[in-house]
Amino acid sequence: MEHITPEGLGPPPSSTGVGHEIYALAERLFPICRSITGDGVRRTLDILSGHVDLERHELPTGTQVLDWTVPKEWNIRSASITGPDGQTVVDFADSNLHVVNYSVPFKGILPLNELKAHIHTLPEQPHVIPYRTSYYAPTWGFCVAYDRVAKMPDGLYRVEIDAELKDGSLTYGEYLHCGQTEREFLLSAHICHPSLANDNCSGLALLATLAQSLKARKTRYSYRFLFAPGTIGSIAWLSRNEDRTHLIDHGLVLSCVGDAGSPAYKRSRRGDAFIDRAMAHVLGREAGAKLMDFSPYGYDERQYCSPGFNLPVGMFQRSVHGTFPEYHTSADNLDFIKPEHLEDSFRILTDVIDIVEEDWTPLNLSPRGEPQLGRRGLYAALGGQASSGATSMSLLWVLNLADGQHSLLSMAERSGLPFRELAAAARLLSDHGLLAAAS
Amino acid sequence: MEHITPEGLGPPPSSTGVGHEIYALAERLFPICRSITGDGVRRTLDILSGHVDLERHELPTGTQVLDWTVPKEWNIRSASITGPDGQTVVDFADSNLHVVNYSVPFKGILPLNELKAHIHTLPEQPHVIPYRTSYYAPTWGFCVAYDRVAKMPDGLYRVEIDAELKDGSLTYGEYLHCGQTEREFLLSAHICHPSLANDNCSGLALLATLAQSLKARKTRYSYRFLFAPGTIGSIAWLSRNEDRTHLIDHGLVLSCVGDAGSPAYKRSRRGDAFIDRAMAHVLGREAGAKLMDFSPYGYDERQYCSPGFNLPVGMFQRSVHGTFPEYHTSADNLDFIKPEHLEDSFRILTDVIDIVEEDWTPLNLSPRGEPQLGRRGLYAALGGQASSGATSMSLLWVLNLADGQHSLLSMAERSGLPFRELAAAARLLSDHGLLAAAS
Amino acid sequence: MEHITPEGLGPPPSSTGVGHEIYALAERLFPICRSITGDGVRRTLDILSGHVDLERHELPTGTQVLDWTVPKEWNIRSASITGPDGQTVVDFADSNLHVVNYSVPFKGILPLNELKAHIHTLPEQPHVIPYRTSYYAPTWGFCVAYDRVAKMPDGLYRVEIDAELKDGSLTYGEYLHCGQTEREFLLSAHICHPSLANDNCSGLALLATLAQSLKARKTRYSYRFLFAPGTIGSIAWLSRNEDRTHLIDHGLVLSCVGDAGSPAYKRSRRGDAFIDRAMAHVLGREAGAKLMDFSPYGYDERQYCSPGFNLPVGMFQRSVHGTFPEYHTSADNLDFIKPEHLEDSFRILTDVIDIVEEDWTPLNLSPRGEPQLGRRGLYAALGGQASSGATSMSLLWVLNLADGQHSLLSMAERSGLPFRELAAAARLLSDHGLLAAAS
Repeated sequence: MEHITPEGLGPPPSSTGVGHEIYALAERLFPICRSITGDGVRRTLDILSGHVDLERHELPTGTQVLDWTVPKEWNIRSASITGPDGQTVVDFADSNLHVVNYSVPFKGILPLNELKAHIHTLPEQPHVIPYRTSYYAPTWGFCVAYDRVAKMPDGLYRVEIDAELKDGSLTYGEYLHCGQTEREFLLSAHICHPSLANDNCSGLALLATLAQSLKARKTRYSYRFLFAPGTIGSIAWLSRNEDRTHLIDHGLVLSCVGDAGSPAYKRSRRGDAFIDRAMAHVLGREAGAKLMDFSPYGYDERQYCSPGFNLPVGMFQRSVHGTFPEYHTSADNLDFIKPEHLEDSFRILTDVIDIVEEDWTPLNLSPRGEPQLGRRGLYAALGGQASSGATSMSLLWVLNLADGQHSLLSMAERSGLPFRELAAAARLLSDHGLLAAAS
Repeated sequence: MEHITPEGLGPPPSSTGVGHEIYALAERLFPICRSITGDGVRRTLDILSGHVDLERHELPTGTQVLDWTVPKEWNIRSASITGPDGQTVVDFADSNLHVVNYSVPFKGILPLNELKAHIHTLPEQPHVIPYRTSYYAPTWGFCVAYDRVAKMPDGLYRVEIDAELKDGSLTYGEYLHCGQTEREFLLSAHICHPSLANDNCSGLALLATLAQSLKARKTRYSYRFLFAPGTIGSIAWLSRNEDRTHLIDHGLVLSCVGDAGSPAYKRSRRGDAFIDRAMAHVLGREAGAKLMDFSPYGYDERQYCSPGFNLPVGMFQRSVHGTFPEYHTSADNLDFIKPEHLEDSFRILTDVIDIVEEDWTPLNLSPRGEPQLGRRGLYAALGGQASSGATSMSLLWVLNLADGQHSLLSMAERSGLPFRELAAAARLLSDHGLLAAAS
Repeated sequence: MEHITPEGLGPPPSSTGVGHEIYALAERLFPICRSITGDGVRRTLDILSGHVDLERHELPTGTQVLDWTVPKEWNIRSASITGPDGQTVVDFADSNLHVVNYSVPFKGILPLNELKAHIHTLPEQPHVIPYRTSYYAPTWGFCVAYDRVAKMPDGLYRVEIDAELKDGSLTYGEYLHCGQTEREFLLSAHICHPSLANDNCSGLALLATLAQSLKARKTRYSYRFLFAPGTIGSIAWLSRNEDRTHLIDHGLVLSCVGDAGSPAYKRSRRGDAFIDRAMAHVLGREAGAKLMDFSPYGYDERQYCSPGFNLPVGMFQRSVHGTFPEYHTSADNLDFIKPEHLEDSFRILTDVIDIVEEDWTPLNLSPRGEPQLGRRGLYAALGGQASSGATSMSLLWVLNLADGQHSLLSMAERSGLPFRELAAAARLLSDHGLLAAAS
């Protein structure tokens, strides 16, 4: 990785009020019935395109992508279960979670006991609708609150799923913010979940807002934003960009980023990539933050970190997926995410981007003994006080470690001081001719 | 170390009921008066030969073995102390611990105060007989319960030790289970202690039973079982096999393996040998298990890990020698060891042997992105559940780490999953053509 | 670093009663008004010269030393504040802390409110006089107890500081104890503080006493003792010895070494230098001792550890500077330091010197198996006891690790045994022909 002095780069964007902006966008995305293919994905990309100029890709059914094949496209118009008394018991119009995602079309009349074999419930959370999918096994099913099913009387039920599975395409969108170099920071969120607010309307909305905010900023790195269906989408992108993945220096997958949980980071497979260290530095200053080692279960980091790619891509979220009761249920709704949490997640991302942008490796031009800071107006003139202020400490740390072997992030790791303070100290020392960039 | 796929190797032996089998053998060994030389060792090897075809070695007195010399052979027929009233106070026939091991012959009449200089007791455990030896300093002595000595009246005592020290030989036995390669796993237990059940009838009986059970198993490694007197015996073996020690890839010394204590492992001098990692993995799943760094005090690992050999040999025991009150006393008897503890120790050894036998380094043949497991019937078809089962996790971990740099044991260490599960996952993936052996 | 066997080197000096000796010397140094230049430093060196033959250096005002310039020399005769009633309110004769160190001369009559802008107090410690300096910004000021200032009535005050700043020189002293090699151990204490007992009359007195005690000892290393004003003094020394710093294998800066706090050590910038390991070993056996990572704020280790020198120099103290209330106030007086703490600090230094002097890397000449210690009278003849004594453990550890890769200090680190015991064991084994020095 090349380190250059951040001279001439623009200031980071302000994030004031951005939480409400992200929330409003997530609110618009929430009602859409998305899946790994189909018009839901396209409508979602339409809305995101209002914030950022997305390049849209369509890969026809049957296209080979790495070890996978693009499946038939799935769309659904309506679905319902009507009871023996003619009343509608379950209606897709009430919640798009009611139908197992990728259900084959079905129309028929069944006795309750046969129907139940196609109904998924969560007995331990009797009021909520679970979220289920069956992308690659042709079946049909409904997801219903346990309480609702318990009240269904015996008898014959009329079932109709007006869905279609036919040749079509897989859709994903991407946006590239071009920086001074073609080295890339990949930011990726999955676009395949229907009405689940935290997982992952929050991530889609946050990334689109971040992309929009970067437009005003001149950056060293190029930032690639990817909005693609989980697994098959990232595999499709990797398949079409195998010759470009070597450009990716840093990457983050975003999952649940809008809930009240503390921020959490799962390291890349490498474990000690720059993004791993930068996230550890930022989260090290957040109360309750969690750092986790890589594991091959989760979101699309599974693909980016497969051994043949092994990209420096970690995963950022708040509450850890699979560990909170609202996960993959109708309780993951717009009440579950909040503008302040989205704003906090946004700030963490911009803090990390600041580190990626502003890290460099200085060389002390007066390395034998301390240079006389007082003469240059860089030091409190009246000595003898019990402790030196943080700013003086930043100056001393930068000078001491500016041996060409330590970037500012290394200095932050060793000193325990915030990257921001050390970057400020390095700028000040550069301005006084005491530092140069290590070659 | 060479890693090969375990195709065609036999299944591990069942250990059901084996604890009683080991205990019964220990029971037969217990009464014999063993020492570092003599007929006690030969009778012990006779009994062990009923289980496994031992090769027996006899090294004449005076033979130079490394820095040591084989001493005169010691045998004892009887010994007693008779009191002023003509009653026998101490009789070797009651316990072979009563005589200091390797006592010179003695016959005489002494007043109590002179006799006491030759009697060893344990005042803090007044009812038990201590175990003492004096192999290399010619002296005689008795070991007696403190309470018994306290009751001895003043007067003249008749003392007789009918022992002999004369030119003879040092005896040890070994058995080699031949595997597919000549790389060896050394298993070593000391055979020099008289009636002490845990230290080390337990180890002798366990090793003989293990050797017997291996006969039915086709293995990659060759397994060398060594039954030799402590220190001088392992030194003698090393002395005669200096040109073969480079074949030893793994080794364990067994000490107290039959008591109720939790399993404990002392690492080899190297500290990070394969056996150290394998034992750490197995004991990491045992409640209360202890892992200890190497130290040069203990059993024959002292010799195997001397700097000129530095073999990858650790030491396995349950309660740590020298830390439990029964250690080296008459309380280390057949009540102190139990079939269930012997069986548990046996299972730990077979678990470790499974790792040694079944470890290999796979290479993912579809390393870019995850291969589509669902298509191959390897993945739960219905997605969207909160957590993936252990089997799916094993498959994902093996695929993710199968970059040719990780053996299954490394994968177990990194993932925290049991070696057994990863080995099963690797077999399944191999069967589906997704893995090959790394060259 | 070259390791040789310590044959023929003299024994370490006894430290009995040395605490009182050090205290008495500190008591003589205490009253002098020192600064970074001037006659106070010279008078201090005069007294120290009574203990050790100091070489004295004078660098004229204006001399360039690395990035710094030797300032004008400062001397002060008297200073006072006289109140509206003609009474002397503050008198330099009472405490040399009363005047800001390096104050420019001043004579004038001021109203109280204007005067107060030149008076420093410690409101949170209202009875004590703070210590303040202003070496490089020309100003004047007084330091007074807060309570005293609170009682000063309004009115006009007569102020006189009879000081002078004129061309002169910077003074420092050094002493070299010559050892068998020219490799050096640097011991450095600052000489610029006026009447502050712990910071750093304690360090000056301890070093002079240590230097004196070394005269009677034949050493491998040469020991350089440096008594120089803080920052500018060490910079001056480095400036004049740039071509000699490569000779420094070990170094310690001494700060507050006479108070009741537990011993503390701040590692060198390298973090794993021999001195860092030796101090960690010694302090590892002291209750409450603190080990701290390097930071570039503190004493002259800042200069020795600047990146262009990066010398293996750590810092030793008891209570950590800046963390105790007496620090840099009139409460850091002769009651604050005690002979027993000075003696304890002295002992720690001699323990570290013993390690530096006596460390060597032995080679086991009988490395295959243990050599028979019993035959050589090195082992308790009667075996079978539950634990081996510490001396036997030292012998076993030395033999086991004497592979030419471990010095005695490494052995102490790995075994957890005291360096002293291992050194004794190594001597004994050498005497029996079992060890040689690794080449």
